[in-house]
Amino acid sequence: MSTTTPTSFPAPDIALPIAGSAPARPDPALIARLQEVSSATASALLHKLGVRQTFIEGPETRLPGAKVVGPAVTLQFMPQREDIASGVAQEYAERASALWHVLDAVHSGDVLCIQAFGDAYSGCLGEMLITYFKGRGGAGIVVDGRIRDWPKVREIGVPLWTRGFTPNYASQASLFPWAYNVPIACSRALVIPGDIIIADDDGAVMVPAKLAPLLAEQSAAHEDWEAFSRARLAEGGSIWTYYPLSEEGRREYEQWRAGRGEGA
Amino acid sequence: MSTTTPTSFPAPDIALPIAGSAPARPDPALIARLQEVSSATASALLHKLGVRQTFIEGPETRLPGAKVVGPAVTLQFMPQREDIASGVAQEYAERASALWHVLDAVHSGDVLCIQAFGDAYSGCLGEMLITYFKGRGGAGIVVDGRIRDWPKVREIGVPLWTRGFTPNYASQASLFPWAYNVPIACSRALVIPGDIIIADDDGAVMVPAKLAPLLAEQSAAHEDWEAFSRARLAEGGSIWTYYPLSEEGRREYEQWRAGRGEGA
Amino acid sequence: MSTTTPTSFPAPDIALPIAGSAPARPDPALIARLQEVSSATASALLHKLGVRQTFIEGPETRLPGAKVVGPAVTLQFMPQREDIASGVAQEYAERASALWHVLDAVHSGDVLCIQAFGDAYSGCLGEMLITYFKGRGGAGIVVDGRIRDWPKVREIGVPLWTRGFTPNYASQASLFPWAYNVPIACSRALVIPGDIIIADDDGAVMVPAKLAPLLAEQSAAHEDWEAFSRARLAEGGSIWTYYPLSEEGRREYEQWRAGRGEGA
Amino acid sequence: MSTTTPTSFPAPDIALPIAGSAPARPDPALIARLQEVSSATASALLHKLGVRQTFIEGPETRLPGAKVVGPAVTLQFMPQREDIASGVAQEYAERASALWHVLDAVHSGDVLCIQAFGDAYSGCLGEMLITYFKGRGGAGIVVDGRIRDWPKVREIGVPLWTRGFTPNYASQASLFPWAYNVPIACSRALVIPGDIIIADDDGAVMVPAKLAPLLAEQSAAHEDWEAFSRARLAEGGSIWTYYPLSEEGRREYEQWRAGRGEGA
Amino acid sequence: MSTTTPTSFPAPDIALPIAGSAPARPDPALIARLQEVSSATASALLHKLGVRQTFIEGPETRLPGAKVVGPAVTLQFMPQREDIASGVAQEYAERASALWHVLDAVHSGDVLCIQAFGDAYSGCLGEMLITYFKGRGGAGIVVDGRIRDWPKVREIGVPLWTRGFTPNYASQASLFPWAYNVPIACSRALVIPGDIIIADDDGAVMVPAKLAPLLAEQSAAHEDWEAFSRARLAEGGSIWTYYPLSEEGRREYEQWRAGRGEGA
Amino acid sequence: MSTTTPTSFPAPDIALPIAGSAPARPDPALIARLQEVSSATASALLHKLGVRQTFIEGPETRLPGAKVVGPAVTLQFMPQREDIASGVAQEYAERASALWHVLDAVHSGDVLCIQAFGDAYSGCLGEMLITYFKGRGGAGIVVDGRIRDWPKVREIGVPLWTRGFTPNYASQASLFPWAYNVPIACSRALVIPGDIIIADDDGAVMVPAKLAPLLAEQSAAHEDWEAFSRARLAEGGSIWTYYPLSEEGRREYEQWRAGRGEGA
Repeated sequence: MSTTTPTSFPAPDIALPIAGSAPARPDPALIARLQEVSSATASALLHKLGVRQTFIEGPETRLPGAKVVGPAVTLQFMPQREDIASGVAQEYAERASALWHVLDAVHSGDVLCIQAFGDAYSGCLGEMLITYFKGRGGAGIVVDGRIRDWPKVREIGVPLWTRGFTPNYASQASLFPWAYNVPIACSRALVIPGDIIIADDDGAVMVPAKLAPLLAEQSAAHEDWEAFSRARLAEGGSIWTYYPLSEEGRREYEQWRAGRGEGA
Repeated sequence: MSTTTPTSFPAPDIALPIAGSAPARPDPALIARLQEVSSATASALLHKLGVRQTFIEGPETRLPGAKVVGPAVTLQFMPQREDIASGVAQEYAERASALWHVLDAVHSGDVLCIQAFGDAYSGCLGEMLITYFKGRGGAGIVVDGRIRDWPKVREIGVPLWTRGFTPNYASQASLFPWAYNVPIACSRALVIPGDIIIADDDGAVMVPAKLAPLLAEQSAAHEDWEAFSRARLAEGGSIWTYYPLSEEGRREYEQWRAGRGEGA
Repeated sequence: MSTTTPTSFPAPDIALPIAGSAPARPDPALIARLQEVSSATASALLHKLGVRQTFIEGPETRLPGAKVVGPAVTLQFMPQREDIASGVAQEYAERASALWHVLDAVHSGDVLCIQAFGDAYSGCLGEMLITYFKGRGGAGIVVDGRIRDWPKVREIGVPLWTRGFTPNYASQASLFPWAYNVPIACSRALVIPGDIIIADDDGAVMVPAKLAPLLAEQSAAHEDWEAFSRARLAEGGSIWTYYPLSEEGRREYEQWRAGRGEGA
Repeated sequence: MSTTTPTSFPAPDIALPIAGSAPARPDPALIARLQEVSSATASALLHKLGVRQTFIEGPETRLPGAKVVGPAVTLQFMPQREDIASGVAQEYAERASALWHVLDAVHSGDVLCIQAFGDAYSGCLGEMLITYFKGRGGAGIVVDGRIRDWPKVREIGVPLWTRGFTPNYASQASLFPWAYNVPIACSRALVIPGDIIIADDDGAVMVPAKLAPLLAEQSAAHEDWEAFSRARLAEGGSIWTYYPLSEEGRREYEQWRAGRGEGA
Repeated sequence: MSTTTPTSFPAPDIALPIAGSAPARPDPALIARLQEVSSATASALLHKLGVRQTFIEGPETRLPGAKVVGPAVTLQFMPQREDIASGVAQEYAERASALWHVLDAVHSGDVLCIQAFGDAYSGCLGEMLITYFKGRGGAGIVVDGRIRDWPKVREIGVPLWTRGFTPNYASQASLFPWAYNVPIACSRALVIPGDIIIADDDGAVMVPAKLAPLLAEQSAAHEDWEAFSRARLAEGGSIWTYYPLSEEGRREYEQWRAGRGEGA
Repeated sequence: MSTTTPTSFPAPDIALPIAGSAPARPDPALIARLQEVSSATASALLHKLGVRQTFIEGPETRLPGAKVVGPAVTLQFMPQREDIASGVAQEYAERASALWHVLDAVHSGDVLCIQAFGDAYSGCLGEMLITYFKGRGGAGIVVDGRIRDWPKVREIGVPLWTRGFTPNYASQASLFPWAYNVPIACSRALVIPGDIIIADDDGAVMVPAKLAPLLAEQSAAHEDWEAFSRARLAEGGSIWTYYPLSEEGRREYEQWRAGRGEGA
């Protein structure tokens, strides 16, 4: 296997990794309130506000039952280019890569969101780096692609949404880590560092940072009448009356809510 | 976000939802006999009868180990059309939709089959409606698409075959509920209301209503010789003799069957 | 190849083909006005009116440069079911099928729209039937699937949008003709018989019948200022001024329009 | 870019290329008769004989109007394995490869069929080799994948069915030439060397060698009554009478055929 | 459903099944050493040696936590051809098929690898045959396709990597068993009988037989420094120092390794 | 269609469009030399240099025979986010968008490369903007997605590589213009502004700016011996001798080259 590969390419004038600004982290009280909001409620309310593409389709939970709410830090893979970063010697080259840097930029409570084009052959993260991520207090990881070392990563217990697993390492196939804390296309959702990620068994939803307080407020009301409806439906009540609330249902709900208040 | 959206569209002359006739429900004795038939046996025997496309490919079990047999009631989504049913105000508009109506048409033991074009962004059902479905005695749900509220739906315990989950509600993306109890294309199987659905961990199979008695009969014989073969293979018997039965194997089987009869 | 196929199946109680009502045909004057509207203008204006899914994605023109405007007649394929209509003896069985009936229901100027699930193995129409379609004055055909006999069909010269070609006949693979003149999902657009189809090299667009007059009106204005802009851009005018029209651009346009009027 | 790549791998004990036996070529008279048979007629008649998967779905004609009939010689690509054949030094290594050998095995009138897994990044053939193929009298090429050098290959004028084009050479991406004149999976059709390929604008069809004479015979009859029907339909005849032939239509046809005979 | 199907086709001159040579089985000591190697380490080290396509993408573990290492025996499906092996009478015809023969060729510790084109409608194996496979001491199964009878197969407990499940049997749809112990394309990896398969929760990796000893050697060193790094990262050590090892990290590691030796 | 859409969203603190630096344009002499290089030769030589992912797979030529060589200016679409840029009022909002800005940044001879995720529903450019592009001297356009207004754009005659056409405008569906003259993922190739694009009927290839001179040099030699080989193959020469050149072939070639020199 003799090749004419030059030992070094004349590389483009680009200093890697591309680095965005560290995002502002949200008020912990806001995060606490959003812990009560399911990804389904978030997606529905944002849609009614007029923001339609919030679902990060593709990544599925790998820790069933896990729920994560936190600000996004982002990592962006790009198609491999050997004149910039060799795919062959990549594991060591990552030392100067966005993959290492983003991990060093993680704060406690952050959710790492990764743009990886759904690639089936690139393992964006493995056991070692996820161990480190957990050590820094990372809350969860959403990858529009795959990770590796699942037999060991499962033990670590970090909430994780991926498209699957692969034995390949990050730059073994057609992608390599390019930028961090920049806006990314995480599947078909635009995620800006600092946006709030709400992820559970339904999947991961992007909440624009500035809409998060409004969402917290609206969802409280939403969850309240749904609790009432759920109780009625469980008792055999009619969907025509209780879901959504008809006028009659709403009157009953107001009484129920008032009564609950009295009882408190 | 200013738009020129008219407050009301001149709508087509179509009364929604489109409603088919309530299907005849099968004899409970037939359903009881089919409880012994796996989806694999059903699919194989129907194929040998000449009916090839019975497997509803795509929806996977979400309650491993669950087995369901029952008559199909059907729900058909169609591509969204805002001049007919607005996607924006849809949750409340569903009150007059096929989604609400089909649930009100469910009988105890029914299997709800949904045509949803495999869409990844539409959650055809959620916790509230599945709660109601269970309350009416629905046996199971097969969706060629997704549902939402999985963190809560899992607790309800309704046997469920879907292509996955999504936080989006039914009409949030590109589909909306259009018709019920009409023939549907559930993935690549044509399901007519009243056909029998047999679903287990291998997937869901459509059994034409009028072939179900013949299937029950043939499968009893099939299961019987397979039980004999399984026992022989487990003892180290040869596949050439015991699967399928060679002439020699068949003679042994006939003796085994006769002997079993004597013992009874 | 010995089989246990019964010579006749106990068939479901369904009279095929399923037939919808013949659609009302539009005023020829309306069609004439819409001949000036490109599919691109139709899609854009409908989107601004709030109707988003009008593009029938998938079928591509097979007669480059062809433009068609006309009311939709519809044909719906469904997954093959041998207990209803045998796939083996299908060519002759089609005599009682939706495929033959829809052709007999074609009026001069109609556009035949076919739901075929994008199937690559079913040739929904062939030379003989397209010859007949042309003889009846059919204006064009939009198939979310394929046709056959392209070497001969090309000669017939009917404007045609398909996903490709196949040597297979209509029911040779996994679909068969089921219903006609019913609402269909033509790719991701809901087409109701009588809706207006506008198709050209960009593809085919569904225009809801009741919005067609509004579209004709708005597009006339739209095309007018675009003609002005095009002329200016061709002379080296700035996109900031002329596309879309800035206030300054609009003033110029008003003068141009007025001047043109004077000149007439 | 320093690597630990060994200069030579311990290679598996496999002598490449894998070579099958040269196929028997059919009687030229048979080929001549099949020139009258379209791929559509071939596919339909074979289906009625019980052979269903004859359409080589995917490759499209690149020389519209071309028609080819001839025996298949086959070439099989397999996933790249650098321990067997380096992907880096591949262009020269091909000298000992199935790609070179199959070209040397082409007879005048042969159709080269290539299994390439639909790969978009491997150009199975280029200008040089297609020049050579034409020089040997090759009739046409069907590739379940792509070729390269299309700007120059178009000039050569060899009838060609491919999934598209690519600038990459044969082993640049994930495949390499492995075997020739062995049975292959050309898309979803099993092609055995010596089978007859009939390809035109509808696509390419595999005709089992031993069924080809029967096909030639049946198609002659088929084409005859279709010619009659076509004439009648063109004159405004009814599809109910003339396509397919009703009893009445068949009587007319028999007369027409007899009359034609008399006239001869 | 009357057809013109001949009772027997003139079949091609091919003796089925196609049979390759029985592979040499590896030294048990080698297999024992590779038990310590994860699929991720195998894939990474092979990539660094220059062999890139070793991951068998698609099949996922169905027995989470299972780990298998063993020599490959192979089974190759091909597109169905009724003139060779009828799809209708197939279950019994399999008696003379590659599917039965490969099972009879399984040795204790073997991993069965199946080329099935990712087909969703063909169940390559079912309960009976997997029972037999287990009885012969088979170590695991990797299918680029699906199996059937999952409700019962799960109980058998054979480690299994598949693309999913189906109720259909092996030849019910578009494939049939064609050859065994021949080189196969298992997804995008070329597997030669006797190659070593390492499969775990990350997926299955093909290790060329002749590179397996080198892999065992290199992975031991690799696992050793990773154990050191993991310990350091768990204690809060920096990724810049410990993953991969910086010069400083490597010095520490050498001391740690030496110290460990002293302690032994 | 009443909604609770707020008239204005609290928007993220992002000034759109994101703008990169204007790329350096190459020496016209370099471009002239590269005009002789096909995309196939470029891709092959870059691969041999070690740069593997240079083919922009997906976009196909829409002006058969066209050949373009020029520096890349880039445009990046991102998933739609109504809190940033409304999809409803988008056509006018584009005035402040990357789409307008990149067109104003085009120099004569530039090739516009667009990242659009292969989207089938977004028409990245239309007649008006392509008219403007041509007026500025743009050499060609490569879109990993679609354009609209093809009936009129075809007349303009700008060389164009796209995945197809759509009647929808740029932001009508799920994407909107986000950044320009930044590095983009154009299908699976990383394109940095200023890289050289070579596009012809085989597709478009990215040539890293700093490797372009080396490519020009190597391709001259490559084209020269291929011209010799082509001549020999056309005369019936053997592929074993002439493609690639054997030692004997190379000696002949050297003589041919020398002789040609003498003749000059």
